[in-house]
Amino acid sequence: MMSRRSVLLLSGPNLDLLGTREPAIYGRETLDDHVQRAVAVAAKHDLDLAHHQSNHEGDLVDAIHAARGTHAAIVINAAAFTHSSWAIQDALAAFEGPVVELHLSNPDSRESWRHTSVVSPVATGIISGFKGDGYRLAVEAVAGLLEDA
Amino acid sequence: MMSRRSVLLLSGPNLDLLGTREPAIYGRETLDDHVQRAVAVAAKHDLDLAHHQSNHEGDLVDAIHAARGTHAAIVINAAAFTHSSWAIQDALAAFEGPVVELHLSNPDSRESWRHTSVVSPVATGIISGFKGDGYRLAVEAVAGLLEDA
Amino acid sequence: MMSRRSVLLLSGPNLDLLGTREPAIYGRETLDDHVQRAVAVAAKHDLDLAHHQSNHEGDLVDAIHAARGTHAAIVINAAAFTHSSWAIQDALAAFEGPVVELHLSNPDSRESWRHTSVVSPVATGIISGFKGDGYRLAVEAVAGLLEDA
Amino acid sequence: MMSRRSVLLLSGPNLDLLGTREPAIYGRETLDDHVQRAVAVAAKHDLDLAHHQSNHEGDLVDAIHAARGTHAAIVINAAAFTHSSWAIQDALAAFEGPVVELHLSNPDSRESWRHTSVVSPVATGIISGFKGDGYRLAVEAVAGLLEDA
Amino acid sequence: MMSRRSVLLLSGPNLDLLGTREPAIYGRETLDDHVQRAVAVAAKHDLDLAHHQSNHEGDLVDAIHAARGTHAAIVINAAAFTHSSWAIQDALAAFEGPVVELHLSNPDSRESWRHTSVVSPVATGIISGFKGDGYRLAVEAVAGLLEDA
Amino acid sequence: MMSRRSVLLLSGPNLDLLGTREPAIYGRETLDDHVQRAVAVAAKHDLDLAHHQSNHEGDLVDAIHAARGTHAAIVINAAAFTHSSWAIQDALAAFEGPVVELHLSNPDSRESWRHTSVVSPVATGIISGFKGDGYRLAVEAVAGLLEDA
Amino acid sequence: MMSRRSVLLLSGPNLDLLGTREPAIYGRETLDDHVQRAVAVAAKHDLDLAHHQSNHEGDLVDAIHAARGTHAAIVINAAAFTHSSWAIQDALAAFEGPVVELHLSNPDSRESWRHTSVVSPVATGIISGFKGDGYRLAVEAVAGLLEDA
Amino acid sequence: MMSRRSVLLLSGPNLDLLGTREPAIYGRETLDDHVQRAVAVAAKHDLDLAHHQSNHEGDLVDAIHAARGTHAAIVINAAAFTHSSWAIQDALAAFEGPVVELHLSNPDSRESWRHTSVVSPVATGIISGFKGDGYRLAVEAVAGLLEDA
Amino acid sequence: MMSRRSVLLLSGPNLDLLGTREPAIYGRETLDDHVQRAVAVAAKHDLDLAHHQSNHEGDLVDAIHAARGTHAAIVINAAAFTHSSWAIQDALAAFEGPVVELHLSNPDSRESWRHTSVVSPVATGIISGFKGDGYRLAVEAVAGLLEDA
Amino acid sequence: MMSRRSVLLLSGPNLDLLGTREPAIYGRETLDDHVQRAVAVAAKHDLDLAHHQSNHEGDLVDAIHAARGTHAAIVINAAAFTHSSWAIQDALAAFEGPVVELHLSNPDSRESWRHTSVVSPVATGIISGFKGDGYRLAVEAVAGLLEDA
Amino acid sequence: MMSRRSVLLLSGPNLDLLGTREPAIYGRETLDDHVQRAVAVAAKHDLDLAHHQSNHEGDLVDAIHAARGTHAAIVINAAAFTHSSWAIQDALAAFEGPVVELHLSNPDSRESWRHTSVVSPVATGIISGFKGDGYRLAVEAVAGLLEDA
Amino acid sequence: MMSRRSVLLLSGPNLDLLGTREPAIYGRETLDDHVQRAVAVAAKHDLDLAHHQSNHEGDLVDAIHAARGTHAAIVINAAAFTHSSWAIQDALAAFEGPVVELHLSNPDSRESWRHTSVVSPVATGIISGFKGDGYRLAVEAVAGLLEDA
Repeated sequence: MMSRRSVLLLSGPNLDLLGTREPAIYGRETLDDHVQRAVAVAAKHDLDLAHHQSNHEGDLVDAIHAARGTHAAIVINAAAFTHSSWAIQDALAAFEGPVVELHLSNPDSRESWRHTSVVSPVATGIISGFKGDGYRLAVEAVAGLLEDA
Repeated sequence: MMSRRSVLLLSGPNLDLLGTREPAIYGRETLDDHVQRAVAVAAKHDLDLAHHQSNHEGDLVDAIHAARGTHAAIVINAAAFTHSSWAIQDALAAFEGPVVELHLSNPDSRESWRHTSVVSPVATGIISGFKGDGYRLAVEAVAGLLEDA
Repeated sequence: MMSRRSVLLLSGPNLDLLGTREPAIYGRETLDDHVQRAVAVAAKHDLDLAHHQSNHEGDLVDAIHAARGTHAAIVINAAAFTHSSWAIQDALAAFEGPVVELHLSNPDSRESWRHTSVVSPVATGIISGFKGDGYRLAVEAVAGLLEDA
Repeated sequence: MMSRRSVLLLSGPNLDLLGTREPAIYGRETLDDHVQRAVAVAAKHDLDLAHHQSNHEGDLVDAIHAARGTHAAIVINAAAFTHSSWAIQDALAAFEGPVVELHLSNPDSRESWRHTSVVSPVATGIISGFKGDGYRLAVEAVAGLLEDA
Repeated sequence: MMSRRSVLLLSGPNLDLLGTREPAIYGRETLDDHVQRAVAVAAKHDLDLAHHQSNHEGDLVDAIHAARGTHAAIVINAAAFTHSSWAIQDALAAFEGPVVELHLSNPDSRESWRHTSVVSPVATGIISGFKGDGYRLAVEAVAGLLEDA
Repeated sequence: MMSRRSVLLLSGPNLDLLGTREPAIYGRETLDDHVQRAVAVAAKHDLDLAHHQSNHEGDLVDAIHAARGTHAAIVINAAAFTHSSWAIQDALAAFEGPVVELHLSNPDSRESWRHTSVVSPVATGIISGFKGDGYRLAVEAVAGLLEDA
Repeated sequence: MMSRRSVLLLSGPNLDLLGTREPAIYGRETLDDHVQRAVAVAAKHDLDLAHHQSNHEGDLVDAIHAARGTHAAIVINAAAFTHSSWAIQDALAAFEGPVVELHLSNPDSRESWRHTSVVSPVATGIISGFKGDGYRLAVEAVAGLLEDA
Repeated sequence: MMSRRSVLLLSGPNLDLLGTREPAIYGRETLDDHVQRAVAVAAKHDLDLAHHQSNHEGDLVDAIHAARGTHAAIVINAAAFTHSSWAIQDALAAFEGPVVELHLSNPDSRESWRHTSVVSPVATGIISGFKGDGYRLAVEAVAGLLEDA
Repeated sequence: MMSRRSVLLLSGPNLDLLGTREPAIYGRETLDDHVQRAVAVAAKHDLDLAHHQSNHEGDLVDAIHAARGTHAAIVINAAAFTHSSWAIQDALAAFEGPVVELHLSNPDSRESWRHTSVVSPVATGIISGFKGDGYRLAVEAVAGLLEDA
Repeated sequence: MMSRRSVLLLSGPNLDLLGTREPAIYGRETLDDHVQRAVAVAAKHDLDLAHHQSNHEGDLVDAIHAARGTHAAIVINAAAFTHSSWAIQDALAAFEGPVVELHLSNPDSRESWRHTSVVSPVATGIISGFKGDGYRLAVEAVAGLLEDA
Repeated sequence: MMSRRSVLLLSGPNLDLLGTREPAIYGRETLDDHVQRAVAVAAKHDLDLAHHQSNHEGDLVDAIHAARGTHAAIVINAAAFTHSSWAIQDALAAFEGPVVELHLSNPDSRESWRHTSVVSPVATGIISGFKGDGYRLAVEAVAGLLEDA
Repeated sequence: MMSRRSVLLLSGPNLDLLGTREPAIYGRETLDDHVQRAVAVAAKHDLDLAHHQSNHEGDLVDAIHAARGTHAAIVINAAAFTHSSWAIQDALAAFEGPVVELHLSNPDSRESWRHTSVVSPVATGIISGFKGDGYRLAVEAVAGLLEDA
């Protein structure tokens, strides 16, 4: 049964390397550090945060399908899939609740292929560039969206 | 051993949501409804229809490989992978039998990224836009192709 | 007066050469062979098929206008006009019934200028690449569309 | 012999359907309604208005040729030919008098292929978007141009 | 309070130089000559014409805002801003009455950067290329639009 | 003298119309409503928020210059200037503190010209699509950025 | 029955105006002058030259069809159709003999849309830019091609 | 009254920050340092140099208008407006004297949007990349141009 | 623990079909033949070669992650993923050792979509077009790179 | 001293290989065969033909310079330089007599980079696609041009 | 041995024709006139100017190589090579001293292919459009650059 | 007479500067160092290696012509000519033996104009990015190719 206070946080490919890969761009915190902080902020807003990371596009699509009727909102950092996965776009389009697109770095100040997002057209809102603080802001954003709904 | 009367029907990502997702575009029937009807039409032409759906590109590639020497033809609705999966194109190019590309809606009257298909260059023929009747027509087309062969 | 069982089949420029021109691509049957077979299949579905071929874009536009209130559906193989005739697109857009776009070969596996169709955005559905069997499939498709309507 | 007060009004493909096709865009008046009003306005300016509609590009080219030495100005709504007919462009370029390009709707707020006009580079002036009032304004414009000449 | 008979005429950058700059393209009349004639034609239609010229994009945006609730229609010759000012587009989109886009010369027969107008998508209608007679025609057009409304 | 707790909030062209223009996209709250809420949230974080709106690109550039040495951070909703103002980009690049780019709607799900931002390459982070809640989130984001600094 | 010494000379739209239209580009001779000279040169090579001019794309396609089995070669100045008629390309591709593409002016030194020819890919050879002497050279070229064959 | 020895030096947006902004690119001298040196060099050539800086496109257009009949030449460093201001282009085109375009850095070795200048097509000559020495060279260039005139 | 002499050889989608698919392009040897030869050459250089083939993008990303701290270098023939997998690019960018990109055929002499590689920007070096000898050369290249390191 | 009957024939890079390289495209005759035939045809028209072949762009430029005041016309087959040598274009533009561009094969039916010629804009006329007969036709064309002059 | 006061002036293809070719664009002075004037101006700054002109790209590359360790600066008018010679770009990139790019005319107001310079990215500064005075200004610029160094 | 064991190694423009130019990209070894090592490796494979470097495109074309019938294979590092020399492409296409394209750096991780190679479509195989080891690998590759032949 869907809980109005349950949020799914999805992390795309290579994010399991956070803290070890290109720290100048992504910072030194691990994905676990980010998720724990997000869970804590969510708790303040009385929100339950479930997290899933995968390097497999199909896994993320499956997870979005499973979120239908279970979670009230999705926060997704699709990483490299952001720029090419129409399958994730179609899956998110079929999700009934709000979707927040999250990026730790600001893609628009990096390579040009990172400037196009196929997630954006189906996202309710976007948070990007705030590095370690991005997860907190995304949870803040979801809290606002669920209040409005 | 390959049967001259065996056909593989492949369904790509998000098609498991048929009937619940954007019914204005895709109709209210579920994937199961479509497949059962296709199986029935196939039977009239003395054809065996095996069906496989997956949200994983790699699964579909594996299934196409397995079809070599097993199935006489493939009908594929690659959904979102239609527009980007060179791996599926390469796999289909290595299949010896005819390939029918199927779309329930007419991609050319939708978003521009849906206008390009990487499946088309290796498809024998294409059926698109006939919604619920598309599966029947694809089986009719396969029946014709296997007769010619 | 419009008959619910009457279908107009339109053939565009150079199709009168079928059977003589590039048989490797288009096969050895003449346009007349194709049309006769289509008429026979139509009869099985209790459909009347009227055929008109022209090398003149204006003739095809006139024929589409005349089909309003007369024919229940149009099957059109616009040949070379497929890629440039906005006039045919506008005419088809003004036709009330379903429109099936037909191509004997698969344009997506040929020259790049054949990849764009101005007919597709106003077609209900598309059948392409099935060579000699294309006319039968187009009639099958129309039969399905008129049943639904 | 050319009359300084005679104007040719040309209407391109599908305009014979005006009043029946997409009334939300083109209004409910027929082409005849538009022409009669234009003739009346022309009369006030002591201008003779001859009208010709055709779905055939060649007919329009022939008519433009015939206008040389006969009519003092041309008003042309080339409809779908606006976007592709270099033949009409060449013909208009060879006409000695002023040419007014007319569109009932504003092509720039519709599909992107309607944003390019091959008529514009050889038009003296352009009137577009004023729906039912467009014919009156085009005649007003011609009256002004013939006064200056 | 908005007057149903009051029209705002806006002139963009460099139009204050009319009559002195490139007379081969724009003619020898000054902006004042054009405006006085427009006022006279407006009077015949019982319309009040207020005129404002500025070389400052922000001034034109401010003027369009001020027109809300004050003027019944806007005629705008945005000159060089035609091709780049999304701010003017947004302002005009927020104006409730009809908008007529006016150009003295025909931009489509000049440099290619003059072929794109960001004003056109929000204009009701367009008048271009009639040089000195353009202001009269724009007022005629507005008169027609206010009659219809 | 620069205060470490003072933030400049800049609003670009047409935002003074918020609440009256296209409410389906931008909501029914006025700019003043948004700003007051932002000031309140800022106060909770012990931040001072100064606001300036202008339809003049030059005013915004001047304001950014004046912020050097005065404000610790800038939140900017550049509206239509987002897509074309290299002058604002250069000015922001010369500002020493963090810059948050804010959009009420999600530009990526609107017209294509709204998909390019010249502000993004010089923004620390971006918040877009959260409508009425965007100002709160932007202040939250600034609070985080100033804490880190 | 096909004569090995019979050549079809085709002239496209607006060429009937030769001698009156833009003499700076096309010269002062009429089409008839050109054709008579071509007939005379052909006679020296013991060739029969039949000429057909039309402003109708369909007429030219029909004429090319009729040339199959009748004429040994085609010389075509497709004029404005050079740049857009895929129907003429398809028709010429179905002609068994050599095809010489002829242009009086050099399209590459004129407007950019004249730089693309859809006739060239199916032409045996091209003669362009020699104005009044072009017809003679085209006949010389055909004479050479028929000798080789 | 125009003085044959009077030159207007115009500086565009953000140049008031010279010496403080990105010194690696623009050097450590202030705009005032540059102007004083230019004035001194001008004096050697018996030229009077008037300087005006603005962050407002409209101000620069106004200043160029005012220069007509007053100044004999213009030196303009349009900064960020270089790449987008058609209004400045139109204004400069209406100026009767020579125009020297000046850039302190070499735009072609920086971001790609800095490679296009809308000022260049109306500039007599261009000086770019010589940093602090650019103002001196521009005055040298003007001196040469006024000698020739 | 990472061995300085251990190398990971990765093979992308459809390479399991080597020897059966398009032998004219890829040769008649199976993937196993290629790998055995590569292992033998590696042994001569005292290198250990581990091989992994997958049709799943996610599997390849996982394998690259696992190679961190385990293998000293990666040789990757990403096959169809070469042209679209930003996820593989990001994963390779996070690998500390040298990366050799390998292609059996020369992609630049095949279809245009094969001309772009998203692997190349993160590859140390590239070996392509040497068919059956490619694996030997890639091992030779790795041996050289590990010597230098 | 310039002779009114002297013509320079220039052959670009790799043409020295004629007869040995890709005979399917260029035929089996050597360059010498072609030149001798051209000299013979020229003699019939009382023309002197000088020939120069080089694989060096600079040599061809030098030869064109030397032709000024010496030769009455140039026939040039620039081969690979056709598509990129602006230096040859500039040199030909400075030659006072007519220039005939010659290609043995029809570049428009080959690779796309062969479709653009930088020679064409400065050529009087073009002869292409007539293989071995091209040299004769080019001399015929020059004879015609020198007669007119 | 390198002299701190020695400057190499390089002139590219066709510049040997200066004074005879297109005087409307390039003026009536010969290259020798320009060089003599430049030498004189250089002498005033106590600079030695060596000049080399060639129509051969390779000669210019060789000359740039030879300038390493010999000349303190290079002034180069690469003429037609400006737009395509990556070899010259690479050679200049390897030169240690400042490089001044010189054009007599303003390429941005001429054909579009003249708008791109491959020399600019490696030039210290650019002087263009000052016709006969360009050489003097380039020497002035070099004098300034060598003073700073 | 052609020796089956003789290989031509060609080096393009600016490679004579190796070791002095941009050592971060190209390393500190001179061209002579590279060639000597290549000769040594060749000797192990019983291959004779002749080397030629030139900054002149025509010299390289001449050398490739001379290699016909003399050398069994070509290794070419065309440097800057890689991206623009269709003449070298045509020359290599006429060479009967295998061609190995060599680059010391990986062009795909540098400026975008270095991403396109006109050599690649006619190369048998490509080796790039292995810096100092590239010459050894290219010789290894040639050895393999000559064994197969």
